[in-house]
This record gives sequence, structure tokens and C-alpha cells, in this order.
Amino acid sequence: MSSAHPLGLPMAVPVPGLPARVRIHEVGARDGLQNEKATVPTEVKAEFIHRLAGAGLSTVEATSFVHPKWVPQLADAEALFPLLSGLDVELPVLVPNERGLERALALGADRVAVFASVTESFAKANLNRTVDESLTAFAPVVERAKGAGCRVRGYLSMCFGDPWEGQVPVDRVVTVARALLDMGCDELSLGDTIGVATPGHVTALLAALDTAGIGADVLGVHFHDTYGQALSNTLAALQHGVSTVDASAGGLGGCPFAKSATGNLATEDLVWMLQGLGIETGVDLAELTATSLWMAGHLGRPSPSRTVRALGPAAAPSSEE
Amino acid sequence: MSSAHPLGLPMAVPVPGLPARVRIHEVGARDGLQNEKATVPTEVKAEFIHRLAGAGLSTVEATSFVHPKWVPQLADAEALFPLLSGLDVELPVLVPNERGLERALALGADRVAVFASVTESFAKANLNRTVDESLTAFAPVVERAKGAGCRVRGYLSMCFGDPWEGQVPVDRVVTVARALLDMGCDELSLGDTIGVATPGHVTALLAALDTAGIGADVLGVHFHDTYGQALSNTLAALQHGVSTVDASAGGLGGCPFAKSATGNLATEDLVWMLQGLGIETGVDLAELTATSLWMAGHLGRPSPSRTVRALGPAAAPSSEE
Repeated sequence: MSSAHPLGLPMAVPVPGLPARVRIHEVGARDGLQNEKATVPTEVKAEFIHRLAGAGLSTVEATSFVHPKWVPQLADAEALFPLLSGLDVELPVLVPNERGLERALALGADRVAVFASVTESFAKANLNRTVDESLTAFAPVVERAKGAGCRVRGYLSMCFGDPWEGQVPVDRVVTVARALLDMGCDELSLGDTIGVATPGHVTALLAALDTAGIGADVLGVHFHDTYGQALSNTLAALQHGVSTVDASAGGLGGCPFAKSATGNLATEDLVWMLQGLGIETGVDLAELTATSLWMAGHLGRPSPSRTVRALGPAAAPSSEE
Repeated sequence: MSSAHPLGLPMAVPVPGLPARVRIHEVGARDGLQNEKATVPTEVKAEFIHRLAGAGLSTVEATSFVHPKWVPQLADAEALFPLLSGLDVELPVLVPNERGLERALALGADRVAVFASVTESFAKANLNRTVDESLTAFAPVVERAKGAGCRVRGYLSMCFGDPWEGQVPVDRVVTVARALLDMGCDELSLGDTIGVATPGHVTALLAALDTAGIGADVLGVHFHDTYGQALSNTLAALQHGVSTVDASAGGLGGCPFAKSATGNLATEDLVWMLQGLGIETGVDLAELTATSLWMAGHLGRPSPSRTVRALGPAAAPSSEE
């Protein structure tokens, strides 16, 4: 039987108490492509971002100004960013340090993000610093960014579990969240980097943050679908009042068939749920799906998004068909 | 980075108001294998069901007594069922009509299920009857099964959407649910056959059933992951008090890469969430995952379950690796 829904969209049945509108923070062009094996030409990245904006995404994280040695996939940030001028959407960029910030500011970026670890193990592995040292290092970056008029997002990675340390206590997340806000971050993104969160854990973390005076209005959630939990975790966050959700077009960044498929929540799967909940996103699902299929063609492999596969043509590349 | 969680299980954070225990109605051996291209030998099916029971699943739908012409994958019901004797779990079987019921009863089945459509289009396509005609035809089947001491489950398909008719009004579901209960069904399973449900729709349907006097205690939910929504829909159902959830080990029944991946919710993905919510299932996730990997080997293709892929060995068959 065909799985196609004749309307191409779910029936909208709003639920009282949920946000009326969700801002999707689209991370496919940065977090997604950063974790893909294939190197995508700069012009394709630019077209991708233009198409994402055209599909109605109002925040499209564009690239990273980390040293090309660490993330060669995004080594073309200086070439890419000017190709995005004129786009009427927010285009945040990741900056790892003051040098990266200066590069971003020189190109006119006005939205930047820093990337902090909640756990010592990941801070050591990713930043070669303790958590405290990394926060100390970020403080002047955030201060300089704010001074330059930027809006600053603070990413918190490993908020639920860590591959070395296992379960992560919620008070550790609260401590790092407070530090990032105190240094001037305008918003935070709570990352489940290895995808081990479940809805009760999400609710408990959001409640602990709330108790510490950190409300849903400054929080975004960033779930990975490693164990298939990203969307139910998102529902729990919406029920707590969170209205900023990170997602990656087509689920970019997670290999659909590899064991370590620590992929991001696919934007299409998220939009399908939000559409069904009657929550406004501004996103045209058909256009977004077409964009992800087009990018899947460039990457030479099918999208891991179930919604993309369900709405897309039957001709998705596959060894099964 | 490795996606493996050092504990192999999520942190349990219970949520007040959810059921303390969920009964998983495992459908992999029937609904799953019925929708797989590969024909699985009877002995493999028997071992599969023994392993599912060994992993702690207390209800394992075993096979179908539909005419072999319609479901050749399950044509070996007579040979299979006796191989399950001695298993201390519930082993419901699907019976399409009185002839199928007699075959099941002759083998000692004491749990049977009938399969009704909520929509006229699917009743016509699947049963070549109107909805009313099909209910009339089921009445003597249910009566005879009850008379023989069987517990009877009534499946309702197309409860949320239908590939021909689109959105399905909740009152249509209420009408068919009431008819099935009135003829003697002990429990119902609400099927989202094409996977288009979203959490608000789930809540609205359960509320409408409740208003009609059909409470969560007689209801199970049966979600498909076509658009990635099965687990968030399940969360919505748990929040309404539903404590019976259908799932298919390894996500059997949905081709992971095909367009029409109208696959069942994978039991492992469900168990991961329930474990995280502190909800008891009795299932050993490691044993269940090992069972699904073993079956994936027999089918010659990887499991579509994200949890199976995350917990399994890196050597899952794939054209990507």
C-alpha cells in the first residue's frame, strides 16, 4: 500500500498549552555538513542555504569559523559567507575563539555561537581544556561579540549523557548554563550530543533550569536521533514551554546506516509533528523536502529522515529496491 | 565519536502521571514478517518467538490464520503454532473469519484477534466489504471465540488517516470501536496504518473515545513510523493513560530504505523510551536487540530501528560502510 498521505501534511489538531509558534534553528549547513564525509562545494552550500531560507526557515546556521585543520568540511567559511548577503534570515555562525570571532565579524556576521561542554571528558577531548578553563576562554569572545552588536548563542554539549562519563547530573548543566548566561549569551541550546535523553530526563532538566531562574524563553533544545528519541524529547520540551528547536534539514550529519548514527533530528520530521500540533513554523514542508532530496543527491546517499523518504520519490538510492 | 552509551540503557527519570508498567504487544512475528519480502523458514520463526519470549515480552502475536493465498509469508501457521507449546507467554493469533478461527482453535489458540477497518476505502480494498458488512461478518467470529474461552483483540486500522480518504474523523473510530466492544472484544488496538498521526490527534481521539465511555484500560495503540512520529504519539498515549503499546522487534515490517516504509514502531526504540521514563516492561533490551540483529541476518538487511543500530555491532550490512 502507498504510504503517501493524499494531503502531504498531517491533520492539524492543536493541543492547549503548547507554544503557538516554534522557531526552528536550522543547523544542517553547519552541524550537518560538518559531520558528513563528503566535501560539498561552496556554491552548493550557498544554494542550500538560499533554498532553506526560501523554504521558510528564519534561522539558518551558516558555517563555522573554527580552524580548517579541525573541520575541513567548513574550511570555506570566508568564501561562503559573502554568497549569503541579501538573505533576509538570521545566519548565525559558530566561533570557537577570538580569532574565529574576528574572522566572522570581518565578514559582517551579526549572530554568533560558542560551543561549551557540560562534561569534563568532552571538554578535554574536544577543547583540550577543563570545563572551567573553556568557560574562562569563552568569556572574552562573548564580550567582544556583544560589544560588536552580535546576538550570541551558547551551545551546551553532553547535557544528558556522555560517552565516557555516562549519565550527566542536571546540576552540572545548570552550572554551565548559568555561566554562559552570566557572560552575556542571549540564548542557550541544550544538546543531547549522543542521543541518550528521554522525555522524563528532558522535563527534569528543564525544571531544574527553571528553578535556577533559567526559563524556557532563553532555551533551545538540540536532540539527536541516535536511539529514535529526538521527537518525543522535543514534545516534552514543547510541553515545558520551549519554543526554539534545533534541527537539521534531511537529518544531515548522521549517516543513515552507520552504527554511530548520532544524527540530528531531521527538520522535516519536526515540521511534520509541529504541523500536526497546529504550531506555526513558517516552513513549507514540500519545499524543504525537495531541498533535502536535492542535497542527498549531492551527497550520493538517501536522507535518514523518515518524512523525506515518505514524501520523496520512490527512486531514493537504495540497495533494497 | 562513539554513539554507544556506556550503560547501554538511558537514565531512568520517571514522570508523575504515566503508567507504572506498560504491556508491549509484540507484533514482529505476525505483522512484521507478514510485510517482509523474504520468506522465513518455520523453524526460524519459532526460534524468533522463543527468543522474544526469552527477552521478556509477555505478549507475542504469533501468526495469522488468514488464507495462504493472501498472506503467503504466514502460510505455515499450522506448522508453526505447535512449535510454541510450552511458552509461558500470551500468543495471540490473527483470525480473518470463522474458518480461520476454527483452524486456530483446533491448535489450541486461546488469544485471537480480528482486523477491522475504520474507513470504507480500506474495508473495500482489504476485505472487499463495507465497514458495516465487515463488522457483521466479525460478530459470529468474536462470539464463537468468546464461547471457546478466548480473549479477543479487535484491531482498528486507518484510525488517523487513509491513503484514499485522507483525514479520518474521530467519530468514525468511536463508532467502530463501540461496535467491536459490543460484539465482545476484550481489548482494542488503534492502528495508524499509514503513520500520519501526530500527538494532538492521538490525544483528541483518546478523549473522544473516553467521552464515549471507552477508557484507556481497554485500548492499545499501534503506531507506524512512516513520518518518524510513532514514539511521540506513544508518549501522548501514555500521558492519556494507555498502558498497552504495539511494537515490532527491530522494526520488522518496514523496509528501512524504501519509500513506502510504513514500518511499525520498533520495540527497541519503545523500550529505550519506557526505560528512560522508569516504566516497567519486563523486557531485557540487550537480549531483544540481539534477537533483532539475528533476525536481520536472516532477512539479509539491517534493522530500521535506531536503537538496534546504535546498540548493535558496527558490522550491520550496509552499502555505506
